[in-house]
Amino acid sequence: MALVNEHFLKLSGNYLFTDIAKKVNAFKATHRQADIISLGIGDVTQPLCPAVIEALHRATDEMATASGFHGYGPEQGYDFLREAILKNDFLPRGIHLDIDEIFINDGAKSDTGNIQELIRWDNSVGVTDPIYPVYLDSNAMIGRAGQKVDDRWSNVTYLPCNAENKFVPSLPDRRVDVIYLCYPNNPTGTVLSKEELRKWVNYALRNDTLIFYDAAYQAYIQDPEIPHSIYEIRGARKCAIEFHSFSKTAGFTGVRCGYTIVPKDLTAATLQGERIALNPLWLRRQSTKFNGTSYLSQRAAEAIYTPEGKEQVRATINYYMQNASRLVETFRRLNFEVYGGENAPYVWMRTPKGSSSWQFFEELLYGAQVVCTPGVGFGPSGEGYVRFTAFGSHERTEEALARIEKWFGK
Amino acid sequence: MALVNEHFLKLSGNYLFTDIAKKVNAFKATHRQADIISLGIGDVTQPLCPAVIEALHRATDEMATASGFHGYGPEQGYDFLREAILKNDFLPRGIHLDIDEIFINDGAKSDTGNIQELIRWDNSVGVTDPIYPVYLDSNAMIGRAGQKVDDRWSNVTYLPCNAENKFVPSLPDRRVDVIYLCYPNNPTGTVLSKEELRKWVNYALRNDTLIFYDAAYQAYIQDPEIPHSIYEIRGARKCAIEFHSFSKTAGFTGVRCGYTIVPKDLTAATLQGERIALNPLWLRRQSTKFNGTSYLSQRAAEAIYTPEGKEQVRATINYYMQNASRLVETFRRLNFEVYGGENAPYVWMRTPKGSSSWQFFEELLYGAQVVCTPGVGFGPSGEGYVRFTAFGSHERTEEALARIEKWFGK
Repeated sequence: MALVNEHFLKLSGNYLFTDIAKKVNAFKATHRQADIISLGIGDVTQPLCPAVIEALHRATDEMATASGFHGYGPEQGYDFLREAILKNDFLPRGIHLDIDEIFINDGAKSDTGNIQELIRWDNSVGVTDPIYPVYLDSNAMIGRAGQKVDDRWSNVTYLPCNAENKFVPSLPDRRVDVIYLCYPNNPTGTVLSKEELRKWVNYALRNDTLIFYDAAYQAYIQDPEIPHSIYEIRGARKCAIEFHSFSKTAGFTGVRCGYTIVPKDLTAATLQGERIALNPLWLRRQSTKFNGTSYLSQRAAEAIYTPEGKEQVRATINYYMQNASRLVETFRRLNFEVYGGENAPYVWMRTPKGSSSWQFFEELLYGAQVVCTPGVGFGPSGEGYVRFTAFGSHERTEEALARIEKWFGK
Repeated sequence: MALVNEHFLKLSGNYLFTDIAKKVNAFKATHRQADIISLGIGDVTQPLCPAVIEALHRATDEMATASGFHGYGPEQGYDFLREAILKNDFLPRGIHLDIDEIFINDGAKSDTGNIQELIRWDNSVGVTDPIYPVYLDSNAMIGRAGQKVDDRWSNVTYLPCNAENKFVPSLPDRRVDVIYLCYPNNPTGTVLSKEELRKWVNYALRNDTLIFYDAAYQAYIQDPEIPHSIYEIRGARKCAIEFHSFSKTAGFTGVRCGYTIVPKDLTAATLQGERIALNPLWLRRQSTKFNGTSYLSQRAAEAIYTPEGKEQVRATINYYMQNASRLVETFRRLNFEVYGGENAPYVWMRTPKGSSSWQFFEELLYGAQVVCTPGVGFGPSGEGYVRFTAFGSHERTEEALARIEKWFGK
């Protein structure tokens, strides 16, 4: 008898954003004329920049000729893109990577979900809380997260990040085998200083803990003191895998391209204590279950490293960061308690006293026709907060703010 | 201590095609002038057809505007493509699918590798032998394949397909929980008649076995009696998941798009015997670990269902099938024993008496500078065979045949 993987049955039926979509649709059904503005899901809105568009047309024309046609590419990605990454995202920060440490993917979501395949099913897991749901769900699907009791997984250590600790997670009080860190943080929009990040690398080296470091939002960092990569910290090559994405850097949410760094120094142990390098294991995983990212998407990604591409991508990031500033400044003026938004495209707001995340979500939807994301959807410590994204257009973001101001003034 | 997933260590270090590349490179090192023709790896060579090129340019232009920009799409794919698939690949064969049974992916390799996540880690596995290595490797990585002893996995039932049984696998003599079938077959190029396929569906229904049916090569079927989809067989909706790919249908090996059918009637059991529908589980898997296929790739795939697209795609398939015919007819003339090549782009050749797969591979490489794929790379029953692909250009295929003829005549 074919038996189902019963770990799936422990998961909540829906992904967070599916729940939000349902509630928005329920509102629409009774308010057919309503013009809803979504500052909820973290999707970008601005078009691809001209350098990327040109690269896509050029790659398309290549594919129309026998000599320029590209079939299967290397599963780990084309060297033209891996070299551009190496030279632009790492060398200028004094980080020396081998080209074989870079794996091109179809976006960070796939790899942050798949990376856990490299480790034993019963390793213990630590997460900052609130957190991007993929980290936990992907561990739950293989049984590593344990049982779900009252919205918490039994084999997971939650490290609360809240206003009280200024969103700086404490080191775990029991050791964990792997820890997920995401900075700039989704959903809180907060960052870790080099000093704070160093504590994590040292913890990992001391405890033989693997760090899965999600740097998908690093392009939004404004403060020159904030690290863009965990490899800016000495020793991180021995304990950390890092995920990058072009989704937010260059509006690639529909194009699908990102990359993962698996340093060659990085190992995990067998039960007998033998050290096994993870880089060749990840290559084996990718060669078996992945067939490379679209050639067109890889050429598109390469274009963001040209001088024009860099400038254009920077302009769009600045555009979104203007939204972030406007959100922060308006919410502060209205006496909301807000965090993030300075080095990240997310603004994290404490809900007014007595309102839960979902209550505030509904109040805002019905009162101002603005959609935010309930913080509790990202984990128990997200209760009492909501997330706003800066990825809208200026016009819609201003309109949303005007409505919120009017609604709140009532 | 972070512990490694030790199942990875049971795998052979390299993927088959990496081994081949190494041997070819060793030859090149000592024969720098050699002009090698590869009829080895199954990658296409002809450019994308004009309808697809136009669609890619159009989609690129859309992405350059705020109103036409597409960010995150649905993880299960855009309805425009799912509807085109439904109307063109299934309705004309009398197969009625619900749109939610179609999941767009980035190629069949990902999904044939990932699908096993839905079932318990200790389900038993059956495969026809020889077979596409991904099916077994993906099961080995989670421990389901058991231990590897003499090139065979302990928890896998191998169903030999060879000249003696005319490449028609017998039903397993012990029951298996899941079975992988691929028709038209990679690597042998042989097909199953409707009658033979019906035996499998009946076996699966009787034994509560899940069939993972890989139809990646269905577009190459010439004989109208051969089924293109397992759902042409009554009852298959209750026991089979089917994989399709645009890689070979439309030359998308570098574009990355395919689809998977998970019927809503399909269930697997819990240990307590409760039946669990697999369609929502696969949606949950994809929503968590996948973020949809590139919008551009999906628009490209849609274009192959237009009247011009259909005609152009058909012309390229015919082009490759002419190569297949030439391979078959030349090899027969040289008194080789060959199979396949009539409803598939692969020709499966028995090596001359006394030559192993790898020996013949090397003889051909050194004697004629032609690369084939050693059959044993696809499993123990592939020993004594090699695979040739029809995906070259006419010119190179003819040149390869001329060289083989000359070499063999010596």
